[in-house]
Amino acid sequence: QLVTVSTWSLVSTWSLGVNPDIHSERTSPSFPVERVTNLLDGGAELTATRRHVESIINSDSTFSQDDRYFLTRVEQYEGSVRRAVRLREKMKELGWADNGTEAMFAFRVLGADVAFGIHNGVFIPTIKELGIEAQIAKWVPLAQDLQIIGTYAQTELGHGTYLRGLETTVTFDPSNQEFVINMPRLSSIKWWPGDLGRSATHALVLAQLYTQGKCQGMHAFIVQIRSLVDHSSLPGVTVGDIGPKMNFDQVDNGFLILQNVHIPRENMLCRYSEVSPDGTYVKRGSDRINYFSMVLTRTRLLSAEIIPALAKACVIAIRYSVVRRQSKLKPGEMETKILDYQMQQQKLFPQLATVFAFHFMASSFEAFCNQVKVQIKSKGDFSSLPELHALSAGLKALLSDVCSAGVETCRRACGGHGYSLLSGLPSLYTRVAGSCTYEGENTVMQLQTARLIKNAGFQLQSLLQSGVEQYVAWDSTSILLAQAAIAHCQYTIVNNFVETMSRLQHEPEIQQVLQVLCDLYALSGILANAEEFLHDGYMTGHQLDLVTASQRDLLTCVRKDAVSLVDAFDYSDQQLHSAIGSYDGHAYQRLFEWAQKAPMNAKVPFALFLALSSCC
Amino acid sequence: QLVTVSTWSLVSTWSLGVNPDIHSERTSPSFPVERVTNLLDGGAELTATRRHVESIINSDSTFSQDDRYFLTRVEQYEGSVRRAVRLREKMKELGWADNGTEAMFAFRVLGADVAFGIHNGVFIPTIKELGIEAQIAKWVPLAQDLQIIGTYAQTELGHGTYLRGLETTVTFDPSNQEFVINMPRLSSIKWWPGDLGRSATHALVLAQLYTQGKCQGMHAFIVQIRSLVDHSSLPGVTVGDIGPKMNFDQVDNGFLILQNVHIPRENMLCRYSEVSPDGTYVKRGSDRINYFSMVLTRTRLLSAEIIPALAKACVIAIRYSVVRRQSKLKPGEMETKILDYQMQQQKLFPQLATVFAFHFMASSFEAFCNQVKVQIKSKGDFSSLPELHALSAGLKALLSDVCSAGVETCRRACGGHGYSLLSGLPSLYTRVAGSCTYEGENTVMQLQTARLIKNAGFQLQSLLQSGVEQYVAWDSTSILLAQAAIAHCQYTIVNNFVETMSRLQHEPEIQQVLQVLCDLYALSGILANAEEFLHDGYMTGHQLDLVTASQRDLLTCVRKDAVSLVDAFDYSDQQLHSAIGSYDGHAYQRLFEWAQKAPMNAKVPFALFLALSSCC
Repeated sequence: QLVTVSTWSLVSTWSLGVNPDIHSERTSPSFPVERVTNLLDGGAELTATRRHVESIINSDSTFSQDDRYFLTRVEQYEGSVRRAVRLREKMKELGWADNGTEAMFAFRVLGADVAFGIHNGVFIPTIKELGIEAQIAKWVPLAQDLQIIGTYAQTELGHGTYLRGLETTVTFDPSNQEFVINMPRLSSIKWWPGDLGRSATHALVLAQLYTQGKCQGMHAFIVQIRSLVDHSSLPGVTVGDIGPKMNFDQVDNGFLILQNVHIPRENMLCRYSEVSPDGTYVKRGSDRINYFSMVLTRTRLLSAEIIPALAKACVIAIRYSVVRRQSKLKPGEMETKILDYQMQQQKLFPQLATVFAFHFMASSFEAFCNQVKVQIKSKGDFSSLPELHALSAGLKALLSDVCSAGVETCRRACGGHGYSLLSGLPSLYTRVAGSCTYEGENTVMQLQTARLIKNAGFQLQSLLQSGVEQYVAWDSTSILLAQAAIAHCQYTIVNNFVETMSRLQHEPEIQQVLQVLCDLYALSGILANAEEFLHDGYMTGHQLDLVTASQRDLLTCVRKDAVSLVDAFDYSDQQLHSAIGSYDGHAYQRLFEWAQKAPMNAKVPFALFLALSSCC
Repeated sequence: QLVTVSTWSLVSTWSLGVNPDIHSERTSPSFPVERVTNLLDGGAELTATRRHVESIINSDSTFSQDDRYFLTRVEQYEGSVRRAVRLREKMKELGWADNGTEAMFAFRVLGADVAFGIHNGVFIPTIKELGIEAQIAKWVPLAQDLQIIGTYAQTELGHGTYLRGLETTVTFDPSNQEFVINMPRLSSIKWWPGDLGRSATHALVLAQLYTQGKCQGMHAFIVQIRSLVDHSSLPGVTVGDIGPKMNFDQVDNGFLILQNVHIPRENMLCRYSEVSPDGTYVKRGSDRINYFSMVLTRTRLLSAEIIPALAKACVIAIRYSVVRRQSKLKPGEMETKILDYQMQQQKLFPQLATVFAFHFMASSFEAFCNQVKVQIKSKGDFSSLPELHALSAGLKALLSDVCSAGVETCRRACGGHGYSLLSGLPSLYTRVAGSCTYEGENTVMQLQTARLIKNAGFQLQSLLQSGVEQYVAWDSTSILLAQAAIAHCQYTIVNNFVETMSRLQHEPEIQQVLQVLCDLYALSGILANAEEFLHDGYMTGHQLDLVTASQRDLLTCVRKDAVSLVDAFDYSDQQLHSAIGSYDGHAYQRLFEWAQKAPMNAKVPFALFLALSSCC
């Protein structure tokens, strides 16, 4: 119940209508908002399907997250499991196919707040990618029906991205046609896999394969870890949760210790390589195919988690910035909407432009992924895999860095209220910051080559000539190589934005407003990397001043459409979880309402204060 | 109890000795570590006092925070109150004066983890600063004995830094010699004050003073809000917690609604201005004195919270980087310590240099503050206040920005484990990020003037000549003005570092190692702002390359002393709260040990999984 305040008649925000300060922003957009929504969704039909899916989810109380900021980890975890189970039921009930559009939208709307993300997003797809037909037929239906819950156990306590360093071993014993799994030391404990800590019954264990006395590198094995009867861990298995993280409280990231655990020969996923009954190792394709599921996960992350985080932060910050008034730009007038300050526009509008730039890039990249997938599956042609891998790593690293920084910029632009969890912004940041961690910059650096950039090549060469050994030279130029990789990705993104705009000639109204964002993105990129352009004289200081001036003009152009542009992302209030960023603009009322629900307000700490006054 | 793993003999980390990988880093430091510790503490005697205080705190189980990552908000709050009460007891028992060195160290060690931070750090000092002798004599002893708990209620739901916009009113009624307090609308609710949500019995309310029909601006009033008998809120008072935040879960930041609340005339703090019995307003000093307590809070934040956050992050990240081995720099060798990679040094060592630069700056600034305080108190001389205010705002904004970014850089440099709360790094970030929020860049911008930088002045002038009105011109140049302010602070810090080094001539060994950090700080500053230097031809691209090369050489110099340099900060493991950054370097063992304590591991969710298997 709400606190009673006699002076004001506090009514529920839901009956207040729309805050006039945000309403006035929507009266005359320069473009048809719905058409931009359709463009982002990939067509009007997809917009309709998405809204249909969202309305079903929003109307089911199991999916409600009104209390999300007030729960313990265990409560959050249990809620996410309930949602996962309910979603399965809904999908059966409504006949949504597992790979269908509805399911895709449902998973995207619920995101990490529904359990079994690794089960659905990695365990099942990896079996499909790396398994043969018999394996797919055996395991996938069980998994889809939640008869088993799977995790993907790759990362170890002591090893992350350096896969060759993984220490878990799987040794083939031809005498009983079994693999024996072991972890030689503490650092080889599997650590971090999602859905593992409390949920998983099975793990897809990535381990060094030994057969006939020889190590054949990393392969994937299906290992049952918990009883299907009482969920207790099986002999030789030690499993648990790794403890709290910066976010993803609802996910049971876990640890797994396997000691002398035996699994049948058929449990090795063997589409691309196999151990025959006598122990002979047989290879049937590229060494690098095992990386493909990682590439897929990475790609999905871009569209499902990383870009939406920045998009939502923009929605919240821009809406809040038209209802928050602070100080006066002109003496004697009302206090000014903070979005009317150039400093605020400078913080927020480049982020908005970035969302569009990244969205279009991700769309193009997904198309490329699907192309490569077809090449591999239909023609056994792995030739595009290295490029796919390099580009996915580079984009993943750049986009997650930029989106994290952008979300944090949006959060800080909301001042004190941006620090309240109720604003929705801290969680957006701490989640997207997690996505930066999956891949280090090292990956980018290792995969991108020095031919990109003259300077790094020159430095590498001169170091080699000066007698420094090659490996030291590689490390010494790593910073330049990383810069080169970023520059290459940045160029690809701008180029892709420009091409996307050129295809919009039949929609001049939305082309016009998006062209402003395209220009703003390009100019902001130049300004953010001005040093690079000035360094070798590609630009003069004066030219840079012109860029700065043009950017300022573009900010003014974006201002009048800013709220309509974020409205076009079409996130419902239920997806934003923000007291300050809701569609109706009633930021203060909602902060006040939501705060009442905090468990801290449940009881006055009497006993504590009596104790306190007696002891001092 | 620990999970039993039969293969390895897992013993408690406390009996393991020191990890050889970190031990080898400490065998031959190029400087006497203890002398740097003394320098940072301000002398060997202060080091001894600090260690004495820390040993007392570390040996008292009430202060133990072994379970800090596993508690609910209410539990964290209650723990912080218990610590605050225990600290008071200890201080009485040991005879530590309130303003004494021991108390200062105790508060610094416990930081925000002890309740009543606003009570001790703002409520009491503000009464001392703004109150007359009678007021100090009445209220301060009660507060020091925790007979009353005070908060500082300034920020409102709708207004933060723009103090003139605050809406709470205090109206003097000469008929009964009382002030009447009111909040005219929702946006005037006091929002954010620490210690308010559940603890405070009294609030120092900042409000617009009305007397004889005229508004005299913001003044401070002592208002009782809760009963001293049963802690219930008094008539006309609505008070509660504002809900969860990005961090500071243990702090009961609160909201406060005052409706027609009457307080006696004596409750206005009246050292510098007063309302006489007939309602006449009398002023006795600078208008701006009310800002002084804000300046003091800000200054304390630098040394007590902001710089230590980056220092601790450096300790954790650098120690972890010598026990984490990943990939191979030279084929055939052991995996490489990640601190041996140039990319890692590039991330971490500039942060380390920054800690020293900021520490020396904060020391100098505190000396300046004390000087101004003496000027005001003894001579009534307010002439330095504007400069103090401007510099404190500028330093606060710059240092909190740089430290936040630096902590996050350290956190990410620790890869996946840096995302675990158990690493200690996420909390350091989410706390120090809070310190960025108290003051917006607007403050800097407003306080620093255009005479700092030619370009902004020129642009302002040309805009004025072109007929744009002055307030628009001010907003348009705000970005350049903010840059100028940052550049000015940056210069002050480098300058201060150089001066500090020049005073170390009698200690050549520590001067030598710190000079490397001084150079690294200066060069990193140039590289981070290379655009500025290139823009107007202060530097050529070639000169910048030389800076880059020099910086690389400096990284190599820092490498051999890196662990000893962070050891010199002398943070005990109890202060770091980090599984991966402890002195003994047993990162993996401690992660594994601590994870077992997570409530998520308390029980297997049987019921949930039985429900799950039945419904699908």
